[in-house]
Amino acid sequence: MAELGLIGAGVMGSALALNLAEKGHRVVLSDLDLARCEAAAARAVAEGLPGRIEPVANPRAMVRALARPRAVMILAPAGDPTEAVIADTAQYLERGDAIADLGNADFHDTRRRAGKIGDLGIGYLGIGVSGGAEGARHGPAMMAGGSAEAWDLLAPALESIAASYEGTPCCTFHGPDGAGHFIKTVHNGIEYADMEAIAETYGLMRDGLGMEAAAIGAQFTAWNDGPLASYLVEIAGTVAGITDAASGTPLLDVIDDRAGQKGTGRWSVIEALHLGAPASTLAAAVEARNGSARKDERLAFEAQYGAAPRPVTGLAPEDLEAALLATRLVGLAQGFAILSAASRTYGWGLAPAAVARNWRAGCIIRSVLLGEIAEAQDGAPDAPLLASPVLAAKLTEALPGLRRVLATALAAGHPVPGMAAALIHIDAMRTGRGTANMLQGLRDYFGSHGFERIGAPGKVAHGPWLDAG
Amino acid sequence: MAELGLIGAGVMGSALALNLAEKGHRVVLSDLDLARCEAAAARAVAEGLPGRIEPVANPRAMVRALARPRAVMILAPAGDPTEAVIADTAQYLERGDAIADLGNADFHDTRRRAGKIGDLGIGYLGIGVSGGAEGARHGPAMMAGGSAEAWDLLAPALESIAASYEGTPCCTFHGPDGAGHFIKTVHNGIEYADMEAIAETYGLMRDGLGMEAAAIGAQFTAWNDGPLASYLVEIAGTVAGITDAASGTPLLDVIDDRAGQKGTGRWSVIEALHLGAPASTLAAAVEARNGSARKDERLAFEAQYGAAPRPVTGLAPEDLEAALLATRLVGLAQGFAILSAASRTYGWGLAPAAVARNWRAGCIIRSVLLGEIAEAQDGAPDAPLLASPVLAAKLTEALPGLRRVLATALAAGHPVPGMAAALIHIDAMRTGRGTANMLQGLRDYFGSHGFERIGAPGKVAHGPWLDAG
Repeated sequence: MAELGLIGAGVMGSALALNLAEKGHRVVLSDLDLARCEAAAARAVAEGLPGRIEPVANPRAMVRALARPRAVMILAPAGDPTEAVIADTAQYLERGDAIADLGNADFHDTRRRAGKIGDLGIGYLGIGVSGGAEGARHGPAMMAGGSAEAWDLLAPALESIAASYEGTPCCTFHGPDGAGHFIKTVHNGIEYADMEAIAETYGLMRDGLGMEAAAIGAQFTAWNDGPLASYLVEIAGTVAGITDAASGTPLLDVIDDRAGQKGTGRWSVIEALHLGAPASTLAAAVEARNGSARKDERLAFEAQYGAAPRPVTGLAPEDLEAALLATRLVGLAQGFAILSAASRTYGWGLAPAAVARNWRAGCIIRSVLLGEIAEAQDGAPDAPLLASPVLAAKLTEALPGLRRVLATALAAGHPVPGMAAALIHIDAMRTGRGTANMLQGLRDYFGSHGFERIGAPGKVAHGPWLDAG
Repeated sequence: MAELGLIGAGVMGSALALNLAEKGHRVVLSDLDLARCEAAAARAVAEGLPGRIEPVANPRAMVRALARPRAVMILAPAGDPTEAVIADTAQYLERGDAIADLGNADFHDTRRRAGKIGDLGIGYLGIGVSGGAEGARHGPAMMAGGSAEAWDLLAPALESIAASYEGTPCCTFHGPDGAGHFIKTVHNGIEYADMEAIAETYGLMRDGLGMEAAAIGAQFTAWNDGPLASYLVEIAGTVAGITDAASGTPLLDVIDDRAGQKGTGRWSVIEALHLGAPASTLAAAVEARNGSARKDERLAFEAQYGAAPRPVTGLAPEDLEAALLATRLVGLAQGFAILSAASRTYGWGLAPAAVARNWRAGCIIRSVLLGEIAEAQDGAPDAPLLASPVLAAKLTEALPGLRRVLATALAAGHPVPGMAAALIHIDAMRTGRGTANMLQGLRDYFGSHGFERIGAPGKVAHGPWLDAG
């Protein structure tokens, strides 16, 4: 009998199956297109792993081939396809078996499915997988939520294929139902914010300092040896340094400036809005991608208003480095604040340090900063990230550079929404007496919504508007 | 027989009933609490309008008392209560009758209900009402969507009680199903953005220039005679100018700086995210309210990091006026872009000029600017708002002031997220060659998402990553 079932032999599914085969597991693989399963099996044979991947025609045949208790993993497109595969599979399973959805599910769906499948006595897991196809093949980060019993069943196999950081697999069970898929959603929101900050830094070097792509790439590569060390900064250096064979010019210069998105970054912002959690750097990144897609409109506005970004002087590389680091820190702080709000709302009991450790290897946002964040949160799991003395010192050191970059950038017309959101977030959060008293005064005036007087919380007061006329 | 039925005799319902009575209509009024209906009827008598408001015990009695075709308006709390009232009422109605929901419904609910009630042959309307209780009593703005036949039935009464601008009622039918409630949602998003910009301007005067509340009030009042003329700037002047009787200090200084919200501003941002439409100034306002509520966290961060806003010099009132005007313009432009995206997605065929005219009186965001916007959009209904030459000239004139205010504000630690979002929005939109090529390069590197080469749209290309590897 086989140890694991896997439904979905697309790019990610096949890569995970090969990864499992390589680590010694026997996998039965199913797909609507059986040829894809046969191709994966053939590849396993070619890689010296005969008999490790066995194609089967459908979930029913898969369940028959599995040892009890059965563990079936699903890697289907999110939404209806995943829903259908789960229903199709569950009918053949028994109490004590487990289903794990490793796709990019909306955590609301995962919560619902966990309840429905759990009612059948079948353990349900929602697992976010990060690292792309390369990661799936050689070591992804995996963020799991759902049934603890199902996790015990699957964990040995998943830990064996996950990325590891200093010997610890980046493959963690975080809590009930949708916890894992939610953490993956927030991961992607942070990824958007980090990429936007890198793009803004690139823009300041290109349009502000007039640097060529190769020099920009060398700068990112140099930064990758310092506090910015991370996968994204590393590959920004690589990408910027590459020459396009067809044109002989830098590859970056021939790539169109319209960004795509698959929606998970946007989900994280929408959930933050529902939760009332801060997400301005993530939202700036989503909005920047949306705006990038409106290329025709941008060209028309450029013709009408004049081009925005102008050359600048006096922008030090150290300030750019500080700006990028501070923006990354605020993006992560907002991401963890979203997780914390969701954990309270859904009763997940998330441990932020465990999330940070989960993200130290295998995933797109891996960075040295995440190790420091994990340590900072060990001591104070319930405190906001930026309340940690170590991280506060880091941010305090970087803030003047971020502030100088913003002053220069905005004066010269460079659109840097992510950096601006980061600076304003921290300035707003360290303003003990803000300006919402004006909002409350206006709201009470036009809508009788009431306000609280200083020193009398919880007691609704109104202004003397009728007297005021 | 009575002309109109109204279910819900709360603050808004009673005010609308009295407004209708005053304009000569006979209304039957129902509520779960009959005493509220009787109180409204007694008030009508006291105001010299006997027999105009007739309390009835329930929807069934209401329907019996109405002339055919019957028109029933509902003003119940959004969500389940409204859903229940609609179902309860619809069972007594006949083909050709009409139901209008004047509450703050989520437009998705309105779309669903319009379909369900429409299938019974009953006309359904979703009508957004703005102007608060005062507006409902003396002239609200009303934004309607749904069945055109139902609108014909209700329009004469509603137009008679609406606010009017130079003789034109601000009471407009905009399109099918949820169009009216969506327009109201976006109205509230713009309202949030406008209020946030006013609060930021207030903060710069208070914490930057060290002005007292009375002087700030006088400044808003003075601005209300110029291009900023609007209800919100007017009442900002009033609110800031009022002295608190209990303490003898300015009222603003005793109001706590934690803002509430009822959710419609947040809805508009969430819908914008779903639609991929720009909403950064609206989102900044929602986030600022959320952050204001985390007062304890702000006080702790202030103690840890030091207070943010510092006094500034050289901040000219004309620059603040320009910054506020530019931010208002961008907020409106984003609101209209959201409407335009929704109109395309849901097939509403919205006319932006009609929306702008609808908002010229009665509603919270009424301003002289909206009249200019209406005229600008008459000529180019499909163009982005800021492509209008008149509005572009206005924005171009205001941009340097906004830019100077931002440079000063950010350098001195003032959190001005709305103003920053506005400036960055326009700078991003007039950047023909942005930085999303870097995003696309990174996405292709780690996820094989592909990119388009300049000059080859629609064709997916990849970088030579394996060679670079």
